[in-house]
Amino acid sequence: MPAGHLTTKHRTEPAVTAHTDARLVRVALLGCGTVGEGVVRLLRRNAEMFERKLGAAFDLAGVADRSLRPNPALGLESRLITRDPASLVIRPDIDIVVELFGGQEPARSLMLKALEAGKDVVTANKALLAENGDEIFRTAAKCGRAVGFEASVGGGVPIIRTLREALAGDRQLAVYGIVNGTCNSILSVMTEAGTEFEDALRQAQESGLAEADPTLDIEGHDAAHKLCLLVTLAFGVLLKPARVFTEGISRITRADINYARQLGYTIKLLAIAKDDNGAIEARVHPTMIPRRHLLADVAGAFNAIYVHSEALGPTMYYGQGAGQLPTATAVMADILEIARHRRAGSRGGAHALGYPAGAVRPGSIKRMDDVVCEYYLRFMARDQPGVLGAIASVLGRNRISIASVIQQERGVGSTVPVIMRTHEAPERNLKRALMAIAKLKMVESSAFIRIEERL
Amino acid sequence: MPAGHLTTKHRTEPAVTAHTDARLVRVALLGCGTVGEGVVRLLRRNAEMFERKLGAAFDLAGVADRSLRPNPALGLESRLITRDPASLVIRPDIDIVVELFGGQEPARSLMLKALEAGKDVVTANKALLAENGDEIFRTAAKCGRAVGFEASVGGGVPIIRTLREALAGDRQLAVYGIVNGTCNSILSVMTEAGTEFEDALRQAQESGLAEADPTLDIEGHDAAHKLCLLVTLAFGVLLKPARVFTEGISRITRADINYARQLGYTIKLLAIAKDDNGAIEARVHPTMIPRRHLLADVAGAFNAIYVHSEALGPTMYYGQGAGQLPTATAVMADILEIARHRRAGSRGGAHALGYPAGAVRPGSIKRMDDVVCEYYLRFMARDQPGVLGAIASVLGRNRISIASVIQQERGVGSTVPVIMRTHEAPERNLKRALMAIAKLKMVESSAFIRIEERL
Repeated sequence: MPAGHLTTKHRTEPAVTAHTDARLVRVALLGCGTVGEGVVRLLRRNAEMFERKLGAAFDLAGVADRSLRPNPALGLESRLITRDPASLVIRPDIDIVVELFGGQEPARSLMLKALEAGKDVVTANKALLAENGDEIFRTAAKCGRAVGFEASVGGGVPIIRTLREALAGDRQLAVYGIVNGTCNSILSVMTEAGTEFEDALRQAQESGLAEADPTLDIEGHDAAHKLCLLVTLAFGVLLKPARVFTEGISRITRADINYARQLGYTIKLLAIAKDDNGAIEARVHPTMIPRRHLLADVAGAFNAIYVHSEALGPTMYYGQGAGQLPTATAVMADILEIARHRRAGSRGGAHALGYPAGAVRPGSIKRMDDVVCEYYLRFMARDQPGVLGAIASVLGRNRISIASVIQQERGVGSTVPVIMRTHEAPERNLKRALMAIAKLKMVESSAFIRIEERL
Repeated sequence: MPAGHLTTKHRTEPAVTAHTDARLVRVALLGCGTVGEGVVRLLRRNAEMFERKLGAAFDLAGVADRSLRPNPALGLESRLITRDPASLVIRPDIDIVVELFGGQEPARSLMLKALEAGKDVVTANKALLAENGDEIFRTAAKCGRAVGFEASVGGGVPIIRTLREALAGDRQLAVYGIVNGTCNSILSVMTEAGTEFEDALRQAQESGLAEADPTLDIEGHDAAHKLCLLVTLAFGVLLKPARVFTEGISRITRADINYARQLGYTIKLLAIAKDDNGAIEARVHPTMIPRRHLLADVAGAFNAIYVHSEALGPTMYYGQGAGQLPTATAVMADILEIARHRRAGSRGGAHALGYPAGAVRPGSIKRMDDVVCEYYLRFMARDQPGVLGAIASVLGRNRISIASVIQQERGVGSTVPVIMRTHEAPERNLKRALMAIAKLKMVESSAFIRIEERL
């Protein structure tokens, strides 16, 4: 029991003094839900290994969580638990504050307060960092403190430090991320079992892979938050979620998945960012990728980030993107790295975003209209002569050329599906063409999915 | 031109003083072959980006290379080139020494000298680190300097910092690496084109993927060097190459590859390490892995490292394992990270191996006899009744049970291949069985390949 914690069993708040025991690193948790509990488990399970790696021990010094019940078996004694996070983050004995509340407030204020009180901070909060990262990283730089956020993207996949450090000697050209396990699970089930979206979503909800309100995941917003962080790390450019084109997976049908397979593709929700000579593309949407691509094999709740770099070429990082322990390992890695730096008398994360705080700039973000893709098109049309010709000529007028067509089955009643794959065209042209096609009497509906052929 | 380098064109050695310009980080290269030239290219190509990331500029302050000719277009002016590496590594103006000579000496002495002179060191030299890493890392710790060695394993794949930092909060259980691009290319060509080993090797030599003397690569020694570093980083255990069981790919035949495919496997040269409750398995050999495994899709000169961790589960890291620019990006990442730490007044890599220098321990290495695998067996036997029964009963006596058999084709003349896949057995049992089978008159030859079914 460390000196700062000499306290009787009957006191609910420990006596607190700034600790000077160099052989202890004191950690406070804000929030002890799924991931927080995972962090507590790792701190206990690997205590001996950490002591060997660090030459010091971690001490879980306080946990702020409104609904947490003491769990001595887990090391969560009642004296550690508080409902007052604001006091916890400024307690003089705390070294590292781990923010796992999620969301904007009070997480934002607490993190700022902790940094100003000289604590290093570790967080998994992509929504907060995507919206308010500039404020938080500026404050950290001003206070000379570190912000670890490996757990905010890709769960246990170390994409944050990879982009910031391992790929820092090279120029990144494009990032393609499967960064939402819920969407990837749903699409995997649809692909493997031939399930429709609603049923696959229900299965994911029943197995705990999707929330009761799954909007944040399935509409792509969670992936867009993560993409903002990836864009900053890869290209040194600030990006807010509102500027990311975001389209979810709720309109993907079993039929689309089948046609994709026939055309040699798999459908994934991808977070895509490209640096086109300084103009940044940033978009989240269902994407057809070649079935033989490594990303196509990333199934279920797994995440993977595929990065194209100028000198290095393609690299890929793959692992579990969510779950208690996988995410906790990323939090734990940040805690350990910060502790190493504290013990060496230096601060890590001097450049939390890979650039000094002032050097990250607002970027020029490409309009979606200017983004060039190949497209998969699905029209439901009346089964009558001339349909294909009518559609094709509208596409041609909009300078979209057709690469292949599938028109093989009979539809329901008098309606048949017409499936096309196009060559590259700007999204502006596609939109114009689809508006014109919508006016054709013989076409009842249309849908399209963007293809990334050369990732 | 930095102050320390004010010198006339006619002097061959620049006037040298310890530099105090905080806006310059001075780099010396030992060796400017393929990778060295790549580093020079990156330093020039990305100079502006590095200045933005670092708030300081890199200055290539000297290059020691016996056969290098000046190349002003590349920034290699004659004043930078020296044949005296020993003087270069102690020059007071140098901050970071990049060792790319390779091999044991003079690389070892020069690195030690550089560290003792207060330089940080970056190297791609896996042979040196595998054999003499303990001396070098101890010296670095004693001198308070960093040793960056990301380029030593996996080329541009950031497996070193991933094991040391990103996975440091978790316990590693197993590492499976495709870490030799030459072998992977040869096996890929054999698999895809049905080529025999000798022809695939010749192709690799003609295309520059294999050396004129390819022994180090194809016999698995290069992979064994890399495995030693992976074992230390993953398990905190020192391991020398002599203790790694090492078997190369030169005995793999086209027939083996075909039978592997029929059984649902792909053959890869894997560097495998496992922590079996403190007993470390470390082995390099051709391995059959399930064709649907992600590692099976890693083709050509690509590398990938698949890591099983206790809490995180499986992760994989994939990219180009060799080549001028890919390897140079890993060197450059280390240079940049060290420069960041130098500028922050702190030393990075306080724990170059993830542990304080003294905490890495000699490990208990499992004997190959005790390693348990499934096996692929190929016997060439006389085409006569009772062969299968005779082989099977020897296997049975050695407690090896058969999972499946292929005996479909006629062989050459009176010889037929008998192919078996076994269940798990210790290697000791397999060896005994194969010795007994060799005594059977009707069996002319036998070969086996280890299977990793559950990686």
